[in-house]
Amino acid sequence: MIKKVDHIGIAVKSIEETLPFYTDVLSLTLLAIEEVDSQKVKVAFLKAGETKIELLEATSKESPIADFIGKRGEGIHHMALGVASIEDRIAEMKEQGIRMIDNEPRLGAGGAHIAFMHPKSAAGVLIELCEKKGDGGLE
Amino acid sequence: MIKKVDHIGIAVKSIEETLPFYTDVLSLTLLAIEEVDSQKVKVAFLKAGETKIELLEATSKESPIADFIGKRGEGIHHMALGVASIEDRIAEMKEQGIRMIDNEPRLGAGGAHIAFMHPKSAAGVLIELCEKKGDGGLE
Repeated sequence: MIKKVDHIGIAVKSIEETLPFYTDVLSLTLLAIEEVDSQKVKVAFLKAGETKIELLEATSKESPIADFIGKRGEGIHHMALGVASIEDRIAEMKEQGIRMIDNEPRLGAGGAHIAFMHPKSAAGVLIELCEKKGDGGLE
Repeated sequence: MIKKVDHIGIAVKSIEETLPFYTDVLSLTLLAIEEVDSQKVKVAFLKAGETKIELLEATSKESPIADFIGKRGEGIHHMALGVASIEDRIAEMKEQGIRMIDNEPRLGAGGAHIAFMHPKSAAGVLIELCEKKGDGGLE
């Protein structure tokens, strides 16, 4: 059911200040920068093999990323697992008693259909299920 | 220089209690369980595409994982990037002013040669460079 680790989300204060570490020091390729208004974040995607590193910067004090940084500082925020048929995966999770933050998929960065699981159901880890429609979750 | 995300390290209180979530709910394949005495941890590796999920349980109160859980609770602890020629990568990092926790590679789980970068040099993220000798970091 899990195809791969689609991306690792990292909360940063400033994409502009953090990006050179990933592009220049680690020599990762920047794939895209976009804003996701619904989550009040700006994101930058970098390529690391089949997985992406997603830098997340709050665009408002009400952003969940501002909240995370306020409580814990910059650092790894979530892990996203690439799946196919996300609606079926959400149904399976719920059948197994897993608490979902998103009971229906919603639109995330890069046009992906995403749903977060509650960390209390996943040993403290914020896990996102992520499907890129049209590629079966494989890209 | 970075081949892939080799693994994501997750600090857990108990591998025994957490493993069923990863194997039964997420249907990931358990690859191995081993103890790394030098780090005072027991680790379980699960396969998620080309990346592994590494569950880390402290085997002593002096373990860095016990310290992490005491301060922040269970959750994502580090991200490991697969590289070739780790000695050269460490030298490059230092040339670029990056502070390394390990200035020389040391032996990690699964026989990998590893070196941690200091989170202060990596926007708050604990990053491990990881080379599997004999496969050029590709597996």
